[in-house]
Amino acid sequence: MSADAENGTIPLMNPILAQESEDHLYHFGILRSAVDLPKMFGDVKFVCCGGSPTRLAYYAEVFAKDVGLEFGKNLSNSDRYVLYKTGPVLWVNHGMGGPSLSIMIIEIIKLLHYANAKNVTFFRLGTSGGLGVPPGTVLISSGAVNGEMQEYHIQYIMGKKTLRPTVLDQELKDELLALAKELKLPVDCGQARLDGAFCEYTKKDKFAFLEKLYAEGIRNIEMESTCFAAMTHRAGIKAAIVCVTLLNRMKGDQVQVEKSEYKDFETRPFKLITTYIKNKIAASGKKQ
Amino acid sequence: MSADAENGTIPLMNPILAQESEDHLYHFGILRSAVDLPKMFGDVKFVCCGGSPTRLAYYAEVFAKDVGLEFGKNLSNSDRYVLYKTGPVLWVNHGMGGPSLSIMIIEIIKLLHYANAKNVTFFRLGTSGGLGVPPGTVLISSGAVNGEMQEYHIQYIMGKKTLRPTVLDQELKDELLALAKELKLPVDCGQARLDGAFCEYTKKDKFAFLEKLYAEGIRNIEMESTCFAAMTHRAGIKAAIVCVTLLNRMKGDQVQVEKSEYKDFETRPFKLITTYIKNKIAASGKKQ
Repeated sequence: MSADAENGTIPLMNPILAQESEDHLYHFGILRSAVDLPKMFGDVKFVCCGGSPTRLAYYAEVFAKDVGLEFGKNLSNSDRYVLYKTGPVLWVNHGMGGPSLSIMIIEIIKLLHYANAKNVTFFRLGTSGGLGVPPGTVLISSGAVNGEMQEYHIQYIMGKKTLRPTVLDQELKDELLALAKELKLPVDCGQARLDGAFCEYTKKDKFAFLEKLYAEGIRNIEMESTCFAAMTHRAGIKAAIVCVTLLNRMKGDQVQVEKSEYKDFETRPFKLITTYIKNKIAASGKKQ
Repeated sequence: MSADAENGTIPLMNPILAQESEDHLYHFGILRSAVDLPKMFGDVKFVCCGGSPTRLAYYAEVFAKDVGLEFGKNLSNSDRYVLYKTGPVLWVNHGMGGPSLSIMIIEIIKLLHYANAKNVTFFRLGTSGGLGVPPGTVLISSGAVNGEMQEYHIQYIMGKKTLRPTVLDQELKDELLALAKELKLPVDCGQARLDGAFCEYTKKDKFAFLEKLYAEGIRNIEMESTCFAAMTHRAGIKAAIVCVTLLNRMKGDQVQVEKSEYKDFETRPFKLITTYIKNKIAASGKKQ
Protein backbone atom coordinates (compact mmCIF):
# COMPACT_ATOMS: atom_id res chain seq x y z
CA MET A 1 0.00 0.00 0.00
CA SER A 2 1.29 3.47 -0.84
CA ALA A 3 1.89 6.26 1.66
CA ASP A 4 -1.25 7.94 0.36
CA ALA A 5 -3.42 5.23 1.80
CA GLU A 6 -2.21 6.04 5.34
CA ASN A 7 -3.88 9.45 5.40
CA GLY A 8 -7.01 8.04 3.80
CA THR A 9 -6.56 9.51 0.31
CA ILE A 10 -6.83 7.31 -2.74
CA PRO A 11 -3.37 6.37 -4.04
CA LEU A 12 -2.32 6.73 -7.65
CA MET A 13 -0.29 3.57 -8.15
CA ASN A 14 1.27 4.77 -11.38
CA PRO A 15 4.62 6.56 -10.95
CA ILE A 16 4.68 7.61 -14.61
CA LEU A 17 1.30 9.37 -14.51
CA ALA A 18 2.16 10.92 -11.13
CA GLN A 19 4.76 13.08 -12.93
CA GLU A 20 2.12 14.55 -15.26
CA SER A 21 0.01 17.59 -14.42
CA GLU A 22 -2.67 16.93 -17.04
CA ASP A 23 -5.03 13.99 -17.47
CA HIS A 24 -8.06 13.55 -19.71
CA LEU A 25 -10.66 11.37 -17.98
CA TYR A 26 -11.81 10.46 -21.43
CA HIS A 27 -14.93 8.36 -20.76
CA PHE A 28 -16.38 11.06 -18.52
CA GLY A 29 -15.25 13.91 -20.76
CA ILE A 30 -13.48 15.58 -17.81
CA LEU A 31 -10.14 17.33 -18.31
CA ARG A 32 -8.20 17.55 -15.04
CA SER A 33 -6.96 21.09 -15.68
CA ALA A 34 -10.35 22.42 -16.84
CA VAL A 35 -12.21 22.02 -13.53
CA ASP A 36 -11.47 22.34 -9.81
CA LEU A 37 -11.60 18.65 -8.90
CA PRO A 38 -10.84 19.10 -5.14
CA LYS A 39 -13.69 21.64 -4.89
CA MET A 40 -16.11 19.49 -6.91
CA PHE A 41 -15.25 16.04 -5.53
CA GLY A 42 -13.03 16.53 -2.45
CA ASP A 43 -15.86 15.72 -0.01
CA VAL A 44 -16.83 12.39 -1.61
CA LYS A 45 -17.03 9.52 0.92
CA PHE A 46 -19.13 6.95 -0.94
CA VAL A 47 -19.18 5.76 -4.55
CA CYS A 48 -22.26 3.76 -5.54
CA CYS A 49 -22.08 2.03 -8.90
CA GLY A 50 -24.18 -0.38 -10.95
CA GLY A 51 -24.71 -1.38 -14.56
CA SER A 52 -27.63 0.63 -15.88
CA PRO A 53 -27.40 4.42 -16.45
CA THR A 54 -31.14 4.92 -15.89
CA ARG A 55 -31.14 2.98 -12.63
CA LEU A 56 -28.17 4.92 -11.24
CA ALA A 57 -29.76 8.25 -12.18
CA TYR A 58 -32.96 7.08 -10.51
CA TYR A 59 -31.07 6.03 -7.35
CA ALA A 60 -29.36 9.45 -7.19
CA GLU A 61 -32.67 11.24 -7.59
CA VAL A 62 -34.42 9.19 -4.89
CA PHE A 63 -31.47 9.59 -2.52
CA ALA A 64 -31.35 13.37 -3.06
CA LYS A 65 -35.06 13.63 -2.28
CA ASP A 66 -34.71 11.36 0.74
CA VAL A 67 -31.95 13.39 2.39
CA GLY A 68 -33.31 16.78 1.29
CA LEU A 69 -30.65 17.65 -1.28
CA GLU A 70 -31.17 19.16 -4.71
CA PHE A 71 -30.86 16.59 -7.51
CA GLY A 72 -28.15 18.06 -9.72
CA LYS A 73 -27.32 17.44 -13.34
CA ASN A 74 -25.33 14.58 -14.86
CA LEU A 75 -21.65 15.56 -14.35
CA SER A 76 -20.38 13.22 -17.08
CA ASN A 77 -19.73 14.96 -20.39
CA SER A 78 -19.61 11.67 -22.29
CA ASP A 79 -22.37 9.20 -23.19
CA ARG A 80 -20.28 6.28 -21.92
CA TYR A 81 -21.31 6.68 -18.26
CA VAL A 82 -23.57 8.86 -16.10
CA LEU A 83 -22.18 10.59 -12.97
CA TYR A 84 -24.28 12.24 -10.27
CA LYS A 85 -23.24 13.74 -6.93
CA THR A 86 -25.54 14.06 -3.93
CA GLY A 87 -23.56 15.46 -0.98
CA PRO A 88 -20.78 12.97 -0.16
CA VAL A 89 -22.22 10.26 -2.43
CA LEU A 90 -21.25 9.68 -6.08
CA TRP A 91 -23.58 7.66 -8.33
CA VAL A 92 -22.01 6.24 -11.46
CA ASN A 93 -22.93 3.43 -13.83
CA HIS A 94 -20.42 0.94 -15.18
CA GLY A 95 -22.20 -0.74 -18.09
CA MET A 96 -22.03 -4.51 -18.52
CA GLY A 97 -19.02 -6.76 -17.94
CA GLY A 98 -15.58 -6.41 -16.38
CA PRO A 99 -13.88 -4.38 -19.14
CA SER A 100 -16.57 -1.68 -19.08
CA LEU A 101 -16.46 -1.59 -15.27
CA SER A 102 -12.65 -1.40 -15.26
CA ILE A 103 -12.61 1.73 -17.42
CA MET A 104 -15.02 3.44 -15.03
CA ILE A 105 -13.09 2.38 -11.90
CA ILE A 106 -9.74 3.54 -13.32
CA GLU A 107 -11.08 6.98 -14.17
CA ILE A 108 -13.04 7.40 -10.89
CA ILE A 109 -9.94 6.38 -8.87
CA LYS A 110 -7.91 9.00 -10.74
CA LEU A 111 -10.66 11.62 -10.31
CA LEU A 112 -10.87 11.00 -6.52
CA HIS A 113 -7.07 10.99 -6.23
CA TYR A 114 -6.80 14.37 -7.97
CA ALA A 115 -9.71 15.63 -5.80
CA ASN A 116 -7.90 14.59 -2.58
CA ALA A 117 -11.01 12.71 -1.44
CA LYS A 118 -10.40 10.76 1.78
CA ASN A 119 -11.69 7.52 3.32
CA VAL A 120 -13.93 6.61 0.41
CA THR A 121 -16.00 3.40 0.34
CA PHE A 122 -17.15 1.84 -2.94
CA PHE A 123 -20.36 -0.14 -3.38
CA ARG A 124 -21.54 -2.11 -6.36
CA LEU A 125 -25.36 -2.34 -6.35
CA GLY A 126 -26.44 -4.83 -8.95
CA THR A 127 -28.95 -7.25 -10.32
CA SER A 128 -27.81 -10.82 -10.91
CA GLY A 129 -28.82 -14.40 -11.44
CA GLY A 130 -29.29 -16.33 -8.18
CA LEU A 131 -28.36 -19.90 -7.33
CA GLY A 132 -30.79 -21.83 -5.16
CA VAL A 133 -32.32 -18.68 -3.72
CA PRO A 134 -35.69 -17.18 -4.74
CA PRO A 135 -35.84 -14.09 -7.01
CA GLY A 136 -35.67 -10.89 -4.97
CA THR A 137 -33.03 -12.17 -2.54
CA VAL A 138 -30.44 -9.57 -1.54
CA LEU A 139 -26.95 -11.05 -1.67
CA ILE A 140 -23.90 -9.46 -0.05
CA SER A 141 -20.78 -10.95 -1.52
CA SER A 142 -18.18 -12.45 0.79
CA GLY A 143 -15.83 -13.03 -2.11
CA ALA A 144 -15.75 -13.43 -5.86
CA VAL A 145 -14.59 -16.32 -8.05
CA ASN A 146 -13.88 -16.22 -11.77
CA GLY A 147 -15.04 -18.54 -14.59
CA GLU A 148 -12.49 -21.13 -13.50
CA MET A 149 -13.76 -20.92 -9.90
CA GLN A 150 -10.60 -19.23 -8.64
CA GLU A 151 -10.57 -16.13 -6.42
CA TYR A 152 -8.74 -14.09 -9.05
CA HIS A 153 -9.50 -11.51 -11.69
CA ILE A 154 -7.52 -12.27 -14.85
CA GLN A 155 -5.69 -9.45 -16.61
CA TYR A 156 -3.50 -9.66 -19.70
CA ILE A 157 -0.61 -7.24 -19.38
CA MET A 158 1.85 -6.90 -22.23
CA GLY A 159 1.02 -10.37 -23.55
CA LYS A 160 1.17 -12.09 -20.16
CA LYS A 161 -1.66 -13.45 -18.02
CA THR A 162 -1.72 -11.79 -14.59
CA LEU A 163 -3.87 -12.90 -11.66
CA ARG A 164 -5.26 -10.25 -9.31
CA PRO A 165 -6.75 -11.48 -6.02
CA THR A 166 -10.44 -10.66 -5.51
CA VAL A 167 -10.75 -9.47 -1.93
CA LEU A 168 -13.70 -7.63 -0.39
CA ASP A 169 -13.78 -5.90 3.01
CA GLN A 170 -15.10 -8.50 5.46
CA GLU A 171 -15.90 -5.97 8.20
CA LEU A 172 -17.99 -3.93 5.79
CA LYS A 173 -19.74 -7.10 4.60
CA ASP A 174 -20.50 -8.03 8.21
CA GLU A 175 -21.88 -4.55 8.94
CA LEU A 176 -24.10 -4.80 5.86
CA LEU A 177 -25.18 -8.34 6.76
CA ALA A 178 -26.13 -7.24 10.27
CA LEU A 179 -27.99 -4.31 8.80
CA ALA A 180 -29.81 -6.46 6.26
CA LYS A 181 -30.36 -9.28 8.77
CA GLU A 182 -30.02 -11.61 5.87
CA LEU A 183 -27.25 -14.11 6.54
CA LYS A 184 -26.33 -15.44 3.11
CA LEU A 185 -22.99 -16.35 1.55
CA PRO A 186 -23.02 -15.20 -2.06
CA VAL A 187 -20.06 -15.22 -4.40
CA ASP A 188 -19.57 -14.53 -8.07
CA CYS A 189 -18.62 -16.91 -10.87
CA GLY A 190 -18.83 -17.33 -14.65
CA GLN A 191 -22.17 -17.88 -16.28
CA ALA A 192 -23.60 -21.14 -17.60
CA ARG A 193 -26.76 -20.42 -19.54
CA LEU A 194 -29.09 -22.51 -21.65
CA ASP A 195 -30.90 -19.67 -23.42
CA GLY A 196 -28.03 -18.16 -25.37
CA ALA A 197 -27.82 -18.25 -29.17
CA PHE A 198 -25.20 -20.98 -28.81
CA CYS A 199 -25.34 -24.05 -26.58
CA GLU A 200 -23.21 -27.16 -26.82
CA TYR A 201 -23.90 -28.68 -23.43
CA THR A 202 -26.90 -30.54 -22.06
CA LYS A 203 -29.34 -29.62 -19.30
CA LYS A 204 -27.86 -32.44 -17.24
CA ASP A 205 -24.29 -31.07 -17.55
CA LYS A 206 -25.51 -27.61 -16.66
CA PHE A 207 -27.41 -28.56 -13.53
CA ALA A 208 -24.52 -30.75 -12.35
CA PHE A 209 -22.27 -27.68 -12.65
CA LEU A 210 -24.76 -25.44 -10.82
CA GLU A 211 -25.05 -28.01 -7.99
CA LYS A 212 -21.26 -27.98 -7.69
CA LEU A 213 -21.24 -24.18 -7.44
CA TYR A 214 -24.02 -24.26 -4.83
CA ALA A 215 -22.11 -26.82 -2.77
CA GLU A 216 -19.13 -24.46 -2.71
CA GLY A 217 -21.25 -21.66 -1.23
CA ILE A 218 -21.90 -19.76 -4.43
CA ARG A 219 -25.26 -18.00 -4.35
CA ASN A 220 -25.27 -15.68 -7.34
CA ILE A 221 -23.86 -15.35 -10.82
CA GLU A 222 -22.91 -11.98 -12.25
CA MET A 223 -20.33 -10.47 -14.54
CA GLU A 224 -18.54 -7.68 -12.70
CA SER A 225 -17.63 -8.88 -9.19
CA THR A 226 -14.16 -10.29 -9.78
CA CYS A 227 -13.00 -7.15 -11.57
CA PHE A 228 -14.62 -4.83 -9.00
CA ALA A 229 -13.17 -6.73 -6.01
CA ALA A 230 -9.69 -7.02 -7.52
CA MET A 231 -9.38 -3.37 -8.52
CA THR A 232 -10.71 -1.83 -5.29
CA HIS A 233 -8.52 -4.21 -3.27
CA ARG A 234 -5.44 -3.28 -5.28
CA ALA A 235 -6.07 0.42 -4.63
CA GLY A 236 -6.67 -0.21 -0.92
CA ILE A 237 -10.30 0.93 -1.17
CA LYS A 238 -12.95 -0.53 1.18
CA ALA A 239 -15.63 -2.10 -0.99
CA ALA A 240 -18.79 -4.22 -0.93
CA ILE A 241 -21.05 -5.86 -3.50
CA VAL A 242 -24.78 -6.06 -2.87
CA CYS A 243 -26.95 -7.65 -5.54
CA VAL A 244 -30.56 -8.62 -5.81
CA THR A 245 -31.36 -11.81 -7.72
CA LEU A 246 -33.85 -11.62 -10.58
CA LEU A 247 -34.16 -15.36 -11.08
CA ASN A 248 -33.05 -18.69 -9.67
CA ARG A 249 -30.79 -20.29 -12.29
CA MET A 250 -31.49 -23.72 -10.78
CA LYS A 251 -34.97 -23.30 -12.33
CA GLY A 252 -34.14 -21.68 -15.70
CA ASP A 253 -32.47 -18.73 -17.39
CA GLN A 254 -35.32 -16.42 -18.41
CA VAL A 255 -36.17 -13.42 -16.23
CA GLN A 256 -39.90 -13.69 -15.51
CA VAL A 257 -40.42 -10.90 -13.00
CA GLU A 258 -43.38 -8.52 -13.37
CA LYS A 259 -42.51 -4.85 -13.87
CA SER A 260 -43.83 -3.70 -10.46
CA GLU A 261 -42.01 -6.56 -8.76
CA TYR A 262 -38.83 -5.70 -10.69
CA LYS A 263 -39.04 -2.09 -9.42
CA ASP A 264 -39.38 -3.40 -5.87
CA PHE A 265 -36.47 -5.85 -6.31
CA GLU A 266 -34.06 -3.34 -7.79
CA THR A 267 -34.59 -0.90 -4.90
CA ARG A 268 -33.61 -3.52 -2.28
CA PRO A 269 -29.79 -3.15 -2.55
CA PHE A 270 -30.41 0.62 -2.73
CA LYS A 271 -32.40 0.58 0.54
CA LEU A 272 -29.66 -1.36 2.32
CA ILE A 273 -26.76 0.76 1.08
CA THR A 274 -28.46 4.15 1.56
CA THR A 275 -29.50 3.17 5.09
CA TYR A 276 -25.86 2.29 5.76
CA ILE A 277 -24.65 5.59 4.26
CA LYS A 278 -27.21 7.66 6.17
CA ASN A 279 -26.21 5.95 9.44
CA LYS A 280 -22.54 6.72 8.73
CA ILE A 281 -23.28 10.36 7.88
CA ALA A 282 -25.36 10.73 11.09
CA ALA A 283 -22.59 9.09 13.16
CA SER A 284 -19.87 11.35 11.73
CA GLY A 285 -22.12 14.38 12.40
CA LYS A 286 -22.41 13.40 16.08
CA LYS A 287 -18.63 13.04 16.39
CA GLN A 288 -18.00 16.58 15.17
CA MET B 1 -22.54 -25.05 -39.86
CA SER B 2 -26.22 -25.80 -39.40
CA ALA B 3 -28.71 -26.46 -42.17
CA ASP B 4 -30.14 -22.98 -41.60
CA ALA B 5 -26.99 -21.37 -42.90
CA GLU B 6 -27.45 -23.01 -46.31
CA ASN B 7 -30.56 -20.98 -47.12
CA GLY B 8 -28.95 -17.84 -45.77
CA THR B 9 -30.92 -17.55 -42.53
CA ILE B 10 -29.12 -17.09 -39.25
CA PRO B 11 -28.87 -20.39 -37.37
CA LEU B 12 -29.87 -20.85 -33.74
CA MET B 13 -27.12 -23.15 -32.52
CA ASN B 14 -28.95 -24.06 -29.34
CA PRO B 15 -31.14 -27.18 -29.58
CA ILE B 16 -32.66 -26.56 -26.14
CA LEU B 17 -33.88 -23.04 -26.94
CA ALA B 18 -35.08 -24.22 -30.38
CA GLN B 19 -37.81 -26.20 -28.60
CA GLU B 20 -39.18 -23.09 -26.88
CA SER B 21 -41.76 -20.77 -28.45
CA GLU B 22 -41.06 -17.82 -26.15
CA ASP B 23 -37.88 -15.79 -25.59
CA HIS B 24 -37.32 -12.56 -23.73
CA LEU B 25 -34.58 -10.53 -25.44
CA TYR B 26 -33.97 -8.99 -22.07
CA HIS B 27 -31.38 -6.29 -22.81
CA PHE B 28 -33.53 -4.87 -25.62
CA GLY B 29 -36.78 -5.29 -23.69
CA ILE B 30 -38.27 -7.26 -26.61
CA LEU B 31 -40.54 -10.25 -25.96
CA ARG B 32 -40.61 -12.63 -28.93
CA SER B 33 -44.35 -13.29 -28.68
CA ALA B 34 -45.33 -9.64 -28.18
CA VAL B 35 -44.21 -8.38 -31.61
CA ASP B 36 -44.14 -9.61 -35.21
CA LEU B 37 -40.38 -10.08 -35.56
CA PRO B 38 -40.43 -11.33 -39.20
CA LYS B 39 -42.48 -8.27 -40.20
CA MET B 40 -40.29 -5.86 -38.22
CA PHE B 41 -36.86 -7.32 -38.94
CA GLY B 42 -37.25 -9.91 -41.73
CA ASP B 43 -35.73 -7.62 -44.38
CA VAL B 44 -32.52 -6.83 -42.43
CA LYS B 45 -29.35 -7.36 -44.51
CA PHE B 46 -26.76 -5.34 -42.57
CA VAL B 47 -26.08 -4.89 -38.86
CA CYS B 48 -23.80 -1.97 -37.99
CA CYS B 49 -22.57 -1.84 -34.42
CA GLY B 50 -20.18 0.21 -32.33
CA GLY B 51 -19.61 1.17 -28.70
CA SER B 52 -21.34 4.47 -28.09
CA PRO B 53 -25.16 4.80 -28.08
CA THR B 54 -25.04 8.44 -29.19
CA ARG B 55 -22.69 7.70 -32.09
CA LEU B 56 -24.84 4.83 -33.37
CA ALA B 57 -28.02 6.93 -33.16
CA TYR B 58 -26.17 9.68 -35.04
CA TYR B 59 -25.00 7.23 -37.71
CA ALA B 60 -28.58 5.93 -38.15
CA GLU B 61 -29.92 9.47 -38.48
CA VAL B 62 -27.29 10.53 -41.03
CA PHE B 63 -27.80 7.33 -43.04
CA ALA B 64 -31.60 7.76 -43.05
CA LYS B 65 -31.22 11.32 -44.34
CA ASP B 66 -28.63 10.25 -46.92
CA VAL B 67 -30.81 7.53 -48.47
CA GLY B 68 -34.08 9.47 -48.07
CA LEU B 69 -35.66 7.35 -45.34
CA GLU B 70 -37.51 8.56 -42.28
CA PHE B 71 -35.39 8.36 -39.11
CA GLY B 72 -37.53 6.21 -36.84
CA LYS B 73 -37.51 5.86 -33.07
CA ASN B 74 -35.20 3.77 -30.91
CA LEU B 75 -36.62 0.22 -31.07
CA SER B 76 -34.88 -0.89 -27.87
CA ASN B 77 -37.11 -0.82 -24.81
CA SER B 78 -34.16 -1.05 -22.43
CA ASP B 79 -31.47 1.48 -21.54
CA ARG B 80 -28.71 -1.12 -22.08
CA TYR B 81 -28.49 -0.61 -25.85
CA VAL B 82 -30.03 1.53 -28.60
CA LEU B 83 -31.50 -0.08 -31.74
CA TYR B 84 -32.45 1.77 -34.91
CA LYS B 85 -33.62 0.43 -38.27
CA THR B 86 -33.21 2.28 -41.57
CA GLY B 87 -34.48 0.06 -44.41
CA PRO B 88 -32.33 -3.11 -44.48
CA VAL B 89 -29.76 -1.68 -42.03
CA LEU B 90 -29.83 -2.14 -38.23
CA TRP B 91 -27.82 0.22 -36.02
CA VAL B 92 -27.05 -1.02 -32.54
CA ASN B 93 -24.49 -0.10 -29.92
CA HIS B 94 -22.58 -2.67 -27.88
CA GLY B 95 -21.07 -0.70 -25.01
CA MET B 96 -17.44 -1.25 -24.00
CA GLY B 97 -15.60 -4.57 -23.85
CA GLY B 98 -16.22 -8.13 -24.97
CA PRO B 99 -18.82 -9.14 -22.34
CA SER B 100 -21.08 -6.18 -23.15
CA LEU B 101 -20.67 -6.85 -26.90
CA SER B 102 -21.40 -10.57 -26.44
CA ILE B 103 -24.78 -9.89 -24.78
CA MET B 104 -25.79 -7.67 -27.70
CA ILE B 105 -24.61 -10.18 -30.35
CA ILE B 106 -26.42 -13.11 -28.69
CA GLU B 107 -29.71 -11.23 -28.57
CA ILE B 108 -29.41 -9.76 -32.10
CA ILE B 109 -28.58 -13.23 -33.52
CA LYS B 110 -31.70 -14.61 -31.81
CA LEU B 111 -33.81 -11.67 -32.99
CA LEU B 112 -32.67 -12.11 -36.63
CA HIS B 113 -33.17 -15.88 -36.42
CA TYR B 114 -36.76 -15.45 -35.20
CA ALA B 115 -37.28 -12.78 -37.88
CA ASN B 116 -36.09 -15.17 -40.65
CA ALA B 117 -33.65 -12.53 -41.88
CA LYS B 118 -31.40 -13.85 -44.66
CA ASN B 119 -27.83 -13.21 -45.85
CA VAL B 120 -27.00 -10.69 -43.16
CA THR B 121 -23.56 -9.04 -42.89
CA PHE B 122 -22.31 -7.62 -39.57
CA PHE B 123 -19.97 -4.64 -39.27
CA ARG B 124 -18.25 -3.26 -36.21
CA LEU B 125 -17.47 0.44 -36.69
CA GLY B 126 -15.23 1.59 -33.90
CA THR B 127 -12.68 3.97 -32.53
CA SER B 128 -9.42 2.49 -31.25
CA GLY B 129 -5.84 3.11 -30.32
CA GLY B 130 -3.46 2.85 -33.28
CA LEU B 131 0.02 1.39 -33.45
CA GLY B 132 2.56 3.18 -35.59
CA VAL B 133 -0.12 4.87 -37.70
CA PRO B 134 -1.24 8.50 -37.36
CA PRO B 135 -4.54 9.37 -35.61
CA GLY B 136 -7.44 9.29 -38.08
CA THR B 137 -6.24 6.19 -39.94
CA VAL B 138 -9.03 3.81 -40.96
CA LEU B 139 -8.09 0.23 -40.16
CA ILE B 140 -9.87 -2.82 -41.60
CA SER B 141 -9.04 -5.84 -39.51
CA SER B 142 -7.64 -8.92 -41.20
CA GLY B 143 -7.81 -10.86 -37.96
CA ALA B 144 -7.91 -10.44 -34.21
CA VAL B 145 -5.54 -11.60 -31.47
CA ASN B 146 -6.24 -11.71 -27.74
CA GLY B 147 -4.17 -10.44 -24.78
CA GLU B 148 -1.84 -13.42 -25.13
CA MET B 149 -1.40 -12.69 -28.85
CA GLN B 150 -3.34 -15.78 -29.94
CA GLU B 151 -6.09 -15.76 -32.56
CA TYR B 152 -8.71 -16.91 -30.07
CA HIS B 153 -11.47 -15.43 -27.99
CA ILE B 154 -11.44 -17.00 -24.51
CA GLN B 155 -14.71 -18.18 -22.97
CA TYR B 156 -15.22 -19.88 -19.61
CA ILE B 157 -17.96 -22.48 -19.90
CA MET B 158 -19.03 -24.40 -16.84
CA GLY B 159 -15.69 -23.82 -15.14
CA LYS B 160 -13.58 -24.68 -18.19
CA LYS B 161 -11.54 -22.43 -20.45
CA THR B 162 -12.70 -22.67 -24.07
CA LEU B 163 -10.91 -21.15 -27.06
CA ARG B 164 -13.00 -19.81 -29.93
CA PRO B 165 -11.15 -18.99 -33.18
CA THR B 166 -11.35 -15.35 -34.27
CA VAL B 167 -12.00 -15.43 -38.01
CA LEU B 168 -13.17 -12.56 -40.18
CA ASP B 169 -14.40 -12.77 -43.77
CA GLN B 170 -11.33 -12.16 -45.96
CA GLU B 171 -13.34 -11.49 -49.13
CA LEU B 172 -15.36 -8.82 -47.35
CA LYS B 173 -12.16 -7.33 -45.94
CA ASP B 174 -10.65 -7.24 -49.45
CA GLU B 175 -13.77 -5.57 -50.85
CA LEU B 176 -13.61 -2.94 -48.11
CA LEU B 177 -9.87 -2.46 -48.60
CA ALA B 178 -10.35 -1.93 -52.31
CA LEU B 179 -13.16 0.50 -51.56
CA ALA B 180 -11.12 2.42 -49.01
CA LYS B 181 -7.96 2.21 -51.12
CA GLU B 182 -6.08 2.07 -47.90
CA LEU B 183 -3.94 -1.04 -47.80
CA LYS B 184 -3.27 -1.60 -44.10
CA LEU B 185 -3.11 -4.76 -42.02
CA PRO B 186 -4.66 -4.08 -38.63
CA VAL B 187 -5.35 -6.66 -35.96
CA ASP B 188 -6.56 -6.53 -32.39
CA CYS B 189 -4.72 -7.30 -29.17
CA GLY B 190 -4.80 -6.58 -25.43
CA GLN B 191 -4.04 -3.13 -24.19
CA ALA B 192 -0.84 -1.91 -22.54
CA ARG B 193 -1.34 1.59 -21.19
CA LEU B 194 0.79 3.95 -19.16
CA ASP B 195 -1.97 6.34 -18.09
CA GLY B 196 -4.14 4.02 -16.02
CA ALA B 197 -4.59 4.36 -12.26
CA PHE B 198 -2.22 1.40 -11.85
CA CYS B 199 1.09 0.82 -13.59
CA GLU B 200 3.80 -1.61 -12.60
CA TYR B 201 5.85 -1.64 -15.77
CA THR B 202 8.28 0.86 -17.24
CA LYS B 203 8.11 2.94 -20.41
CA LYS B 204 10.93 0.82 -21.80
CA ASP B 205 9.02 -2.45 -21.22
CA LYS B 206 5.94 -0.97 -22.77
CA PHE B 207 7.55 0.30 -25.95
CA ALA B 208 9.45 -2.98 -26.38
CA PHE B 209 6.07 -4.75 -26.27
CA LEU B 210 4.47 -2.31 -28.73
CA GLU B 211 7.42 -2.78 -31.13
CA LYS B 212 6.88 -6.54 -30.93
CA LEU B 213 3.19 -6.13 -31.77
CA TYR B 214 4.00 -3.81 -34.66
CA ALA B 215 6.53 -6.31 -36.06
CA GLU B 216 3.78 -8.95 -36.07
CA GLY B 217 1.55 -6.75 -38.22
CA ILE B 218 -0.65 -5.39 -35.47
CA ARG B 219 -1.88 -1.88 -36.25
CA ASN B 220 -4.54 -1.13 -33.68
CA ILE B 221 -5.53 -1.96 -30.12
CA GLU B 222 -9.16 -2.26 -29.12
CA MET B 223 -11.31 -4.27 -26.77
CA GLU B 224 -14.05 -5.95 -28.76
CA SER B 225 -12.54 -7.52 -31.90
CA THR B 226 -11.74 -11.02 -30.65
CA CYS B 227 -15.22 -11.50 -29.22
CA PHE B 228 -16.92 -10.01 -32.31
CA ALA B 229 -14.87 -12.10 -34.75
CA ALA B 230 -15.30 -15.34 -32.77
CA MET B 231 -19.06 -15.03 -32.30
CA THR B 232 -19.94 -14.03 -35.87
CA HIS B 233 -17.64 -16.77 -37.21
CA ARG B 234 -19.27 -19.38 -34.97
CA ALA B 235 -22.73 -18.39 -36.26
CA GLY B 236 -21.53 -18.45 -39.87
CA ILE B 237 -22.16 -14.71 -40.28
CA LYS B 238 -20.05 -12.65 -42.71
CA ALA B 239 -18.40 -9.88 -40.69
CA ALA B 240 -15.86 -7.07 -40.86
CA ILE B 241 -14.27 -4.66 -38.38
CA VAL B 242 -13.46 -1.12 -39.46
CA CYS B 243 -11.94 1.22 -36.89
CA VAL B 244 -10.51 4.70 -36.95
CA THR B 245 -7.53 5.36 -34.69
CA LEU B 246 -7.73 8.28 -32.24
CA LEU B 247 -4.08 8.18 -31.21
CA ASN B 248 -0.79 6.47 -31.95
CA ARG B 249 0.09 4.45 -28.85
CA MET B 250 3.76 4.49 -29.90
CA LYS B 251 3.65 8.17 -28.90
CA GLY B 252 1.51 8.08 -25.74
CA ASP B 253 -1.87 7.07 -24.30
CA GLN B 254 -3.86 10.30 -24.04
CA VAL B 255 -6.39 11.17 -26.73
CA GLN B 256 -5.50 14.68 -27.90
CA VAL B 257 -7.81 15.17 -30.83
CA GLU B 258 -9.78 18.43 -31.24
CA LYS B 259 -13.57 18.10 -31.17
CA SER B 260 -14.05 19.02 -34.85
CA GLU B 261 -11.28 16.62 -35.88
CA TYR B 262 -12.84 13.90 -33.69
CA LYS B 263 -16.18 14.35 -35.49
CA ASP B 264 -14.38 13.99 -38.83
CA PHE B 265 -12.44 10.91 -37.64
CA GLU B 266 -15.45 9.08 -36.26
CA THR B 267 -17.37 9.45 -39.53
CA ARG B 268 -14.61 7.76 -41.57
CA PRO B 269 -15.55 4.12 -40.87
CA PHE B 270 -19.17 5.22 -41.34
CA LYS B 271 -18.42 6.66 -44.79
CA LEU B 272 -16.67 3.48 -45.88
CA ILE B 273 -19.33 1.08 -44.60
CA THR B 274 -22.33 3.09 -45.80
CA THR B 275 -20.77 3.45 -49.26
CA TYR B 276 -20.34 -0.32 -49.31
CA ILE B 277 -23.94 -0.87 -48.17
CA LYS B 278 -25.36 1.61 -50.70
CA ASN B 279 -23.39 -0.08 -53.50
CA LYS B 280 -24.76 -3.48 -52.44
CA ILE B 281 -28.34 -2.17 -52.27
CA ALA B 282 -27.98 -0.58 -55.70
CA ALA B 283 -26.50 -3.81 -57.15
CA SER B 284 -29.29 -5.99 -55.72
CA GLY B 285 -31.84 -3.51 -57.09
CA LYS B 286 -30.35 -3.89 -60.59
CA LYS B 287 -30.49 -7.70 -60.35
CA GLN B 288 -34.22 -7.70 -59.60
